[in-house]
This record gives sequence, structure tokens and C-alpha cells, in this order.
Amino acid sequence: MSVTAASGFVAAGVVAGLKSSGKRDLAVVQNLGPLNVAAAVFTTNRCKANPVLWSQQVIADGVASAIVLNSGGANCYTGAAGFQVTHGTAEAAAERLGISAGDVIVCSTGLIGDQLDLDLLTAGLWDATLALSGDAAAGEAGGLAAAEAIMTTDTRPKQSEYRAPGGWTIGGMAKGAGMLAPGLATMLVVITTDAVLTSPQLDTALRRATRVTFDRLDSDGAMSTNDTVALLGSGASGVEPTLDEFAVALTGICADLARQLQSDAEGASHDIAIEVRNALTEDEAVTVGRAVSRSNLFKAAIFGNDPNWGRVLAAVGTTDAAFDPYGIDVAINGVQVCSAGEPDQPRDLVDLTPRAVSVLVDLHAGSETATILTNDLTHDYVHENSAYAS
Amino acid sequence: MSVTAASGFVAAGVVAGLKSSGKRDLAVVQNLGPLNVAAAVFTTNRCKANPVLWSQQVIADGVASAIVLNSGGANCYTGAAGFQVTHGTAEAAAERLGISAGDVIVCSTGLIGDQLDLDLLTAGLWDATLALSGDAAAGEAGGLAAAEAIMTTDTRPKQSEYRAPGGWTIGGMAKGAGMLAPGLATMLVVITTDAVLTSPQLDTALRRATRVTFDRLDSDGAMSTNDTVALLGSGASGVEPTLDEFAVALTGICADLARQLQSDAEGASHDIAIEVRNALTEDEAVTVGRAVSRSNLFKAAIFGNDPNWGRVLAAVGTTDAAFDPYGIDVAINGVQVCSAGEPDQPRDLVDLTPRAVSVLVDLHAGSETATILTNDLTHDYVHENSAYAS
Repeated sequence: MSVTAASGFVAAGVVAGLKSSGKRDLAVVQNLGPLNVAAAVFTTNRCKANPVLWSQQVIADGVASAIVLNSGGANCYTGAAGFQVTHGTAEAAAERLGISAGDVIVCSTGLIGDQLDLDLLTAGLWDATLALSGDAAAGEAGGLAAAEAIMTTDTRPKQSEYRAPGGWTIGGMAKGAGMLAPGLATMLVVITTDAVLTSPQLDTALRRATRVTFDRLDSDGAMSTNDTVALLGSGASGVEPTLDEFAVALTGICADLARQLQSDAEGASHDIAIEVRNALTEDEAVTVGRAVSRSNLFKAAIFGNDPNWGRVLAAVGTTDAAFDPYGIDVAINGVQVCSAGEPDQPRDLVDLTPRAVSVLVDLHAGSETATILTNDLTHDYVHENSAYAS
Repeated sequence: MSVTAASGFVAAGVVAGLKSSGKRDLAVVQNLGPLNVAAAVFTTNRCKANPVLWSQQVIADGVASAIVLNSGGANCYTGAAGFQVTHGTAEAAAERLGISAGDVIVCSTGLIGDQLDLDLLTAGLWDATLALSGDAAAGEAGGLAAAEAIMTTDTRPKQSEYRAPGGWTIGGMAKGAGMLAPGLATMLVVITTDAVLTSPQLDTALRRATRVTFDRLDSDGAMSTNDTVALLGSGASGVEPTLDEFAVALTGICADLARQLQSDAEGASHDIAIEVRNALTEDEAVTVGRAVSRSNLFKAAIFGNDPNWGRVLAAVGTTDAAFDPYGIDVAINGVQVCSAGEPDQPRDLVDLTPRAVSVLVDLHAGSETATILTNDLTHDYVHENSAYAS
């Protein structure tokens, strides 16, 4: 059930002292091979954190042997000194693991603008490399510890696993609670597999999977500087799935982790799925869903259990997607509150007490569909993000 | 100080019974001439309310003799029946005032998706036309009543006035508290002048003024379906200013009303001015300022008096404006917290206890500047917008 579910991987999570809370804050995942292929996607934010700048170089050749992840500091907007900290982290991990620093992906999450302490990171890495364990050892204890070590305001670790009938496995872990938006989102995800695949195959499958999962999670419209989704392949199962077979399974893992991120989003009391149907293009379906997911008015209404479909349509109207304002239907939790741009069923019929909310927008402009996942705007979101400085 | 400050205008605000609170909810402003020139700008939302669809036709010939405005219902997404209510409102006003229905602008604000009661509107119009009064009569009582009648969640009426040395005057009123975003924003504004100008001149001046005022107010990123800014000219002063002279004064009035809207935005505890300096183009300066103004994380941080400049830069990084991530400076309330993309002065030096907050982002990419006005994201905003249904 963890990042070490696939054979060929070991992981650890330790206390390096970066978090003032004294909780675990440093994770290492190592690929023991025989293959060390990898792919990764990163935030599209142009203000990228130092570990993202570093890891983009690491992944360029499709090879990675380990990933080091820390919470307790984003190492973003920390200048050349900050880049040296990332570089030093990779060097320290490489030395301990007997690999090349150029094969070590580094991820960081936490406050922007503060320097990380390289001495703490180096000491923590020593402990972590001593604690590395895999699936066979101690019931994936290392994988769970790693998933805990990357948490910030997350209330629980996120893990996922898929065991293919053919004998290969995918495992993964994720963190993310605030700044959850498209182009990835204060989100660090490590996925491992023992299937036999090349790094171009991993890259293709990863982009297919993230495009329809993490990229469609938009909890609060804020795009992080640090997002990374890395996929490592050990080939340890000796089994070679087809690319399609693998991509479908990987998409399932990514969808599961994205749902876990949504359901643990900062302060949220509702998990909202906005399905846009019958758009002219898939991009337009995404654009419309995203516009609704970014309407604070709509999100605050859902928090108040108010099925305010006018705010849905007001958000739809800000887009340039193809639609006729008097040709749109809206259903909320199965109640058709608006048909052809006019009131239909009474809004009182909508029950918004469950956590899961389904909003269906039918544009009647084509045949493409997309679903955006978001959350409501709550007092707790405001509280956590006005007090958050760790 | 009101919409009747300029000569040639009378106004009234009455209780028509549209608001469940029993407060004033219907306003009329009439232009007594001798000119009846007019210009207007409307929401760019593609889901436009019925009164907007109607008023766009009215303004096409540059002539308007009266404006009827109601709170207590947006008359949006109410279909053909809703359009008939708007048309009926204009007909009723025209009959009472002895003018053409085609010269009556109609504005509505309130909940989307509910039908307005034309009988209540017609009866209210009767009362309003009996109560019309101008500057000379009863100290602009009609103008103040009109400003009150258009309020929704506004806590106070918004009015402004400019008396030119040359003997002409501009007066205005506005409402707007939630759904305050660019392309105008649940915002109804009526501005009157007794200067002698043509309707093309009014149109030019109005677009010049709104582009740098109302269009740069982005309280909550939500664009309304009903926004209207109308400018009526009576020519009653007999004085003909230059277009530049008039446009500058009009911009001042619009800026004043925009500031009043900002300072009364729903639930806000800070008024934030985001000035983007040295952008390559003015559009890019606006884009960058708007991105920061729409970051819930940044806005929640300001609510918590946290000068979290990392969230400013994370928002800047989502734009495609020209800048070097390591060439950006950020100052908050005069403290240079970030220089060239690295931490500068300690964030503790920033005092965020005053309501007014100044955020200065220097892109060092050109010489263009723009300022976006926004508010913080507060518990009261969430509360008001989760409970609002009136």
C-alpha cells in the first residue's frame, strides 16, 4: 500500500529537525534496480523552487536512482545559496547511497523564502539511509514513514497501490493540502513500479495519467512553486506490460491519490466534482470546470449548503468556451436546478449535507467531457491559511 | 454629493417590496435635459442578465432619459418571462415620465434565477416618480434615497461629486459589495453631468475612466452578470468642457466610487492596493496584479496580518508576463521584503494592522505600471457568501 509496494524499492522517513513541530520531515526513496529509469513532471509555475530547477536537470536523461524529499521549507526564492543547499542535499545522499548526485531527485515543501539548513539535512540523510526498508521488511514501515515525512498541513499520509494480474506492481505516496491547483499543486508525489519499461514509456504514461488526474484537481486556484510528480521504474518484476495496460493502471493510481489530496484539502468540508458535458473540445470543458472551481462565491455557497446555481452560471459566463447562455443545464447532486438557462427543479430539493458534491454542467455545444475536482471555501480554509507559516 | 448634484437630474428611492427586509429597493434617476445624451458599459460576462440585454439596446443610439434600478433580484437566467419583466419595467417608467420606453435603462441586482414581480415594480415606480427630487429640493434627498435603494449587502450608500471651476458638475452613485471583479462587478453605477457633451464624447470619456478604475477593482475574482456603469448628460450647465478635462474629472469620480466599493467589500478587513511597476506593457502589469489579487492564499495571509511575500511571487509566476524570477522586488507596506527574488528585510518589520495595505511588485522588465485594488479573504467573507440568498 506504499511507495515500496513494488519490488526493488526501499524508503525511509526521519526527523531531521526542519519542522518546528519535531515531526518527521525528511524522506528518502531509493530504487535498487535492476533498472533505474524515471520520468517526472513539474509545476508550470515560472517561479520554480530550487529543488525543481535541480530535478529538471536530473530527469533529463531519464535516469534517477533516488529521491530525497523534505517538508519544513520550500527552498524557493532563496537564490544561489538555496540552490547550493539542494545540490548539497543530492551530494550527501549520493555519497551515502553510493550513487551519482546527478541521479538524485530533490523535492521540498513548506514556506517560501526561508533558507534550509544543510547541516540538518545532511545529518537527517545519514539517519534516513540507515533506516531504509522495503516491502518485505517490517510491513512497509519505511514507506509509511516516508509518506508521513512529506506532510505539511496534511492530516494524514496518502498512499496507493495497484497489483497487476501479470505480476507487476505500482505503489505511490503523495502530499498536498493547500496551494492545490492545476499544473500540479503544492503536491509532491512519488510513484514506483517494478514493471519493465523504458524511461520514454514512463514519461508517456505519466503525462497521460497526470493530464486527467492531478492537473484536474483545483482545490484553491493557487499554483505551487514546488510541485513534482516522479515515477521510478526498477524493472524488478521482470514483467513487461503493454504501454496502454501500464498507463491505465497508473492513471488509476494517480486518480486515487488525487482524490485523497482533495478529501484532505485544507479546511474543506465538501469534495466537489464539477463535470462539464458536451463541450465543443475537451480543453473547453476543462476551462469551464476550472472557472467554476475558482469562484469563491460558488465555493462559499456550497460551504453553506446553498445550491446557488446562479453562481455556477456566472462563472461559466466568464469563459470563452462555445455555449449558448440559454442552452445550458445545471444539476447539483442529481437535481436539475436549471434547464436551458432557466430555473427548473426547486433548489430546496438539493441535499448538500453529504461531503461529496456533484455539479453537472451540460453546455450542449459538442460531445467532450471533463471533470474538475475542487473543495468548498470554508472558515477553516481561511483560518489555516491566515495562520500558516510553517 | 449625489447622483443629482449636477443640474437637470432628479432621483428617488422607494420601497417596492422586492427585498424581504422591507428596505428601499427601487430607484429612478431622470434626466430633465435639455440634452439626453448617454453612454454605458456593461459586464463582459457572457451570461448577461435581462436588464443588461435590454439596456444594451437602449444605449445603442446614445440617448437615454431615465434609469430604473432595483435590488432584490438580478433578473438573470429567468428566460423570456424575465425579459418581459424588464421590458414592462421600462414601459411603466416611460408611461409615468412621458418618455419613450426605448430611452429607459434598466438595472437589477440580487439573486440569480428568481423572477421579479412586475406588479410590485410597477406600483413602486408610481411611488418613485411621485417622489423624484433634484439638488435644489430637500438637500438631494432623492439622490440619497436612490443610492440606498440599490444597496444589497452594501453597508452604506456610495456617492461622489465633482464641481468644476468652469461651472459644470459630475455626480454619481454606486453599489457593490460581493462579486466584485474586473469587467465590472456586481456593480451598478450611475453618473450624471450637466456639462455639454455629445454621446460619443461621453462614451470615450467613460471607457477611458472605467478602464483604469472599476476594471482594476478585483475584490473576489467573481464577475457579475449584471454590472452596468451608465453616464447621463443633461447639458444643463450650458458649459462645454474639453474632452480631456471632462475625462480626467470623470476618472476621479470613478476612482472615488471604486475606492468606496473596495472599502465596503463583503467581509473585508483590509483594502489592498497591488501596484505592479516596470512591466513590459500595461496589460502585463494588469495581468500580474490581477493574479496576485486572485490568490486566496495571499489574501488569507493578509487577513492574518502575515506579509507572506512567497505567495505574492507564486501568483506572479502563474502569469506569462515578461520578468526574470530572480529579478523581482516585492515591498509590503514600505518594507522591501524581497529584492531580486531573494529575501531582503525581515518580514517582522511589516505592520499589517492598518486597513490599507500596499503591495509593490517591481518586475524590472519595462516601464509600465498598473494598480489593482482588492481585499483580504476573511471569515466574514465566507460567512456572508455562504448565508447570502437575498
